[in-house]
Amino acid sequence: MTFYSDNAAAPCPEVLAAIAAAAPATVSGYDGDPISARLDAAFAEVFGQACTVLPVGTGTAANALALATMVPPYGAIVCHQDAHIQVDECGAPGFFTGGAALMLVPGAAGKLTPEGIATALLPHRGDVHQVQVRALSLTQATEAGTVYTPAELAALGDHARAQGWRVHLDGARFANAVAHLGCHPGDISCRAGVDILSFGTIKNGGLSAEAIVVFGPDLVADLKFRRKRAGQMPSKGRFQAAQLLAMIEGGTWLRNAARANAGAQAIAAAAGDRVMHPVEANEVFVQLRPGEPERLRAAGLGFYDWGAAGSGEARFVVAWDTPDADIAALAALLAG
Amino acid sequence: MTFYSDNAAAPCPEVLAAIAAAAPATVSGYDGDPISARLDAAFAEVFGQACTVLPVGTGTAANALALATMVPPYGAIVCHQDAHIQVDECGAPGFFTGGAALMLVPGAAGKLTPEGIATALLPHRGDVHQVQVRALSLTQATEAGTVYTPAELAALGDHARAQGWRVHLDGARFANAVAHLGCHPGDISCRAGVDILSFGTIKNGGLSAEAIVVFGPDLVADLKFRRKRAGQMPSKGRFQAAQLLAMIEGGTWLRNAARANAGAQAIAAAAGDRVMHPVEANEVFVQLRPGEPERLRAAGLGFYDWGAAGSGEARFVVAWDTPDADIAALAALLAG
Amino acid sequence: MTFYSDNAAAPCPEVLAAIAAAAPATVSGYDGDPISARLDAAFAEVFGQACTVLPVGTGTAANALALATMVPPYGAIVCHQDAHIQVDECGAPGFFTGGAALMLVPGAAGKLTPEGIATALLPHRGDVHQVQVRALSLTQATEAGTVYTPAELAALGDHARAQGWRVHLDGARFANAVAHLGCHPGDISCRAGVDILSFGTIKNGGLSAEAIVVFGPDLVADLKFRRKRAGQMPSKGRFQAAQLLAMIEGGTWLRNAARANAGAQAIAAAAGDRVMHPVEANEVFVQLRPGEPERLRAAGLGFYDWGAAGSGEARFVVAWDTPDADIAALAALLAG
Amino acid sequence: MTFYSDNAAAPCPEVLAAIAAAAPATVSGYDGDPISARLDAAFAEVFGQACTVLPVGTGTAANALALATMVPPYGAIVCHQDAHIQVDECGAPGFFTGGAALMLVPGAAGKLTPEGIATALLPHRGDVHQVQVRALSLTQATEAGTVYTPAELAALGDHARAQGWRVHLDGARFANAVAHLGCHPGDISCRAGVDILSFGTIKNGGLSAEAIVVFGPDLVADLKFRRKRAGQMPSKGRFQAAQLLAMIEGGTWLRNAARANAGAQAIAAAAGDRVMHPVEANEVFVQLRPGEPERLRAAGLGFYDWGAAGSGEARFVVAWDTPDADIAALAALLAG
Repeated sequence: MTFYSDNAAAPCPEVLAAIAAAAPATVSGYDGDPISARLDAAFAEVFGQACTVLPVGTGTAANALALATMVPPYGAIVCHQDAHIQVDECGAPGFFTGGAALMLVPGAAGKLTPEGIATALLPHRGDVHQVQVRALSLTQATEAGTVYTPAELAALGDHARAQGWRVHLDGARFANAVAHLGCHPGDISCRAGVDILSFGTIKNGGLSAEAIVVFGPDLVADLKFRRKRAGQMPSKGRFQAAQLLAMIEGGTWLRNAARANAGAQAIAAAAGDRVMHPVEANEVFVQLRPGEPERLRAAGLGFYDWGAAGSGEARFVVAWDTPDADIAALAALLAG
Repeated sequence: MTFYSDNAAAPCPEVLAAIAAAAPATVSGYDGDPISARLDAAFAEVFGQACTVLPVGTGTAANALALATMVPPYGAIVCHQDAHIQVDECGAPGFFTGGAALMLVPGAAGKLTPEGIATALLPHRGDVHQVQVRALSLTQATEAGTVYTPAELAALGDHARAQGWRVHLDGARFANAVAHLGCHPGDISCRAGVDILSFGTIKNGGLSAEAIVVFGPDLVADLKFRRKRAGQMPSKGRFQAAQLLAMIEGGTWLRNAARANAGAQAIAAAAGDRVMHPVEANEVFVQLRPGEPERLRAAGLGFYDWGAAGSGEARFVVAWDTPDADIAALAALLAG
Repeated sequence: MTFYSDNAAAPCPEVLAAIAAAAPATVSGYDGDPISARLDAAFAEVFGQACTVLPVGTGTAANALALATMVPPYGAIVCHQDAHIQVDECGAPGFFTGGAALMLVPGAAGKLTPEGIATALLPHRGDVHQVQVRALSLTQATEAGTVYTPAELAALGDHARAQGWRVHLDGARFANAVAHLGCHPGDISCRAGVDILSFGTIKNGGLSAEAIVVFGPDLVADLKFRRKRAGQMPSKGRFQAAQLLAMIEGGTWLRNAARANAGAQAIAAAAGDRVMHPVEANEVFVQLRPGEPERLRAAGLGFYDWGAAGSGEARFVVAWDTPDADIAALAALLAG
Repeated sequence: MTFYSDNAAAPCPEVLAAIAAAAPATVSGYDGDPISARLDAAFAEVFGQACTVLPVGTGTAANALALATMVPPYGAIVCHQDAHIQVDECGAPGFFTGGAALMLVPGAAGKLTPEGIATALLPHRGDVHQVQVRALSLTQATEAGTVYTPAELAALGDHARAQGWRVHLDGARFANAVAHLGCHPGDISCRAGVDILSFGTIKNGGLSAEAIVVFGPDLVADLKFRRKRAGQMPSKGRFQAAQLLAMIEGGTWLRNAARANAGAQAIAAAAGDRVMHPVEANEVFVQLRPGEPERLRAAGLGFYDWGAAGSGEARFVVAWDTPDADIAALAALLAG
């Protein structure tokens, strides 16, 4: 019974079937095959806006490539202090941008606000002695398992636009956010001012494809060269394209995410007021009681301690394929 | 009937089966799963030497990461003027190394020699005003479809060692070289002084995994961080590991390569003295006659013109899955 | 009457004379002239330890080159949150290192402590998902105008060594620190575990030369290439060497610094308990009273507001050539 | 008697006087002083076009910064195969651009032509698999001591514009070219399509200032940040500005260059038909006779062998301050 992360889950049947179906040889490699040719239109259908889709192999690559195309080497990127690009990507933004800096902003429940950003940047200057903010990177669903509302995102997008910044959205769990909100996918991406979305599938039943979804047409040409140069353009690109199509066509992505979200709700209900942040996606952060971590592990549950050492905080992540019985077992233990 | 490249071929059944078998969820992501845990030992068995294996998604990533760990930003890499790292990777070595230069050396039939390298570097100096050669990058099989003998490679390795350079081998078609030579894989890699091998599978029946095989233990720690930072460490890494194991365990890689090589021999035999380089792998370069390109294409054959515009040169690549009938058809047309 | 910064002061007569004396043509450019040839020995005499001295044109270049030779691109550098390398160098460390990160640590009165660093790094991990600390960058005198004691620096150096980090010291105002402590220059550099010192002269009566003083011989070769590559190796390098020699030979650097420090003491005495940090170098931070900034400026005094907008904090910097009358005028106004 | 290079010559009296005159303290550092404030207008007067002037400390910095602002990291720069940026700057363009490549083009007498460039780039493609040419870097006077005519430069500028490339001119010896041609400085810079000129003074009687002269206003903002970030913005920038003004105001630059050019003509006349390239600036390349290098050196002459080892080629560079007697001595020996 493992609640470590959704990143080691099984790929869903739709994705596996799509890979098998894409197996026959094609005439052209790279993005020249018929499956890859369908990507842009399929995503435009989902988002209600023309876009360009560039598949890559990891979320780290999606995020770092997106940011590199938005900011110069002397640029800076505003993000939450707990953002994945800061905490878990080994400095990839610094590598891909040629040395741009992340400007870390705190925010409750994993969320940024225009006011919080403005306050954090008060000492920052626009002269040549300092790096220059050129992009805002948001995460949806957030690292705290919460979800920005369309209005919250739009306000952040407006704030960024007013400063002349581009907007990146790390959507490793974007599907969980859409499933939670029940909104149109465009409401929390292109319509909220997002220029580039890192659209994740791997945590949500995918196998090896994430999508860089570019809504800002001026960014496309640059990004294509950067992607190739980064070794993120596989010759058999049809297998990434096929996975992405399998996720979005027929609604697989939302079904998988809804299932994971529901599991998180069940766990949250059991944990009651010990839940540390609103549970709006597929992650539950719980303040455990003394001795409880040991009891849970003794019962066969795998999960990560969170927060500062000894804090007693724990993170439980539900994947699209987490067995109902495992969820029930965890819930029972937490409620007990 | 397509002879454009082996890079859009179908994945072989062994690889597809391995992906399906790796589907069930694992406890740990990244390289923490049981399949990934088998990689080092499996490759050590093949090469007869301890090594560390880091899967990545493209040959470009394998090459550029290997080089970045070998040379400082002010370094230089000696390679053939037609090397893939120079011609077809959008400057990836420059990106990954932080700006190191490629020093291009000519050489007949795609091959370098110690003498050729020494001559080309005669004007080069060791003072601080010039970039400093720190690595030699070779390609096996070469871009001309030829294969270095173990003795040729060992001589190049010795030359590099004598200068204090590390040695990288771009083995996108390494399997074809081993199949041609019938040698031990170590004879044209670790035993010939190669520090890091880019072991390709994608052109040889793989789907999305190449292996960085590191024989120099001092290079491993640095490379692991660079790989993560480059977005080349997927959370579901077990699918790359499974593909690599499917290729090398049971000899799939050599069977696939031998089949492609045999097809190239059939085409070469038909082309006779119009073949431009010794055909030792799965590529055939042919000097076509006036009007012949058009006739071949009218017959339904797909292939790339090669060399300078109007030269009449053509490249035919045979993949592991190129139908016998297609090969026979091409051979008949060339012989006609 | 300007107390903005010491960075626009006049060069001292010794430096101007040295430049004039270096004017005649030499046989060899770059570092091949007789003046440059004296640098290493002259600094070794000052520091009591063999060292290699590489002149550069700015403190930013000195700092960034030093750090680039200490940390890999996936590395991180621990520094005070107010460090010049973070606040006023437009991200130069990110550029020169290829994207390494600064890890900002708070600390009272501009100083770091081993305990403060350890606490700040508690959440930091050594796995491949995070950048890796490889260097500690300290500033002496600090950005708050305070000075680390030899014991404080040695403790920080020990802490760094114990973690396997290299130690960089930003000594833009190193002379002021030595003048304040009355210690041997080695006591707060090489003897305290510093690998590379950015030895500043420009703020202390120099014109256009800062020295990278390398105590770690293993770092020299790499640094020389990086310096050239960064455009920091002028062909008429003798003029930078001459300035550096003019500063250290005959004690000019300590005389100039002592004079500036004394001016700061006079101002601090006048400001009394409104001084915000111990005044140990040539900078005085004062909590002004409402209306006082306007009164001072009306009296013809130039200085920077400091801290958050509206805080009423001000910074006064005394240069080696600030007129006594100006210092007295400021002191009288503050005491009034 | 040294003819090694003009890069170790004495600074001229005008420059030394300007440095002395700039000594008094100023209110603001960096570019905020009254001397720096005069730069743009003074250069606009010389070039007959509005421009922005950014002083730096070396020609390498001027060149690399200029190129970095013109090409993306996946870009390429066309230059002569003997260009200083390729041969003698330790790969600085690769560092400053984030890994862009130089595309080396051969050309007689150190010159490029539109036809030569077009031929060299024939195999180059515009797809994402290759780096993309975005700039042409020319050198005036060339590395062979020749000078492009205004018409030659304009044709190259037109060729670049037609491809969508920016144009950089390495003018380490720009003054010698203008003195030779007797043209308006704008005729071989802004009026010929040059976007950024590296205007050299150090080889021509300067001490430590080169000027990046930007004619393309869209490039200025980016360049200012890159300059600071590269540690090329000294706080006492007034000393670089003063040197630049001393060179261009009053015609010092052209007088110095004319004197050096004249010396080269005297040497060329003596060498007769052994001169290898037209002598149009201050460099003379001579095919020496067997035994002649030894005889010249025995007579006390310092100079560099050139070309391949054993070729007998020699380079003689005349500086603005090379004594007439030395020139006469060399001429007599060559004519003898």
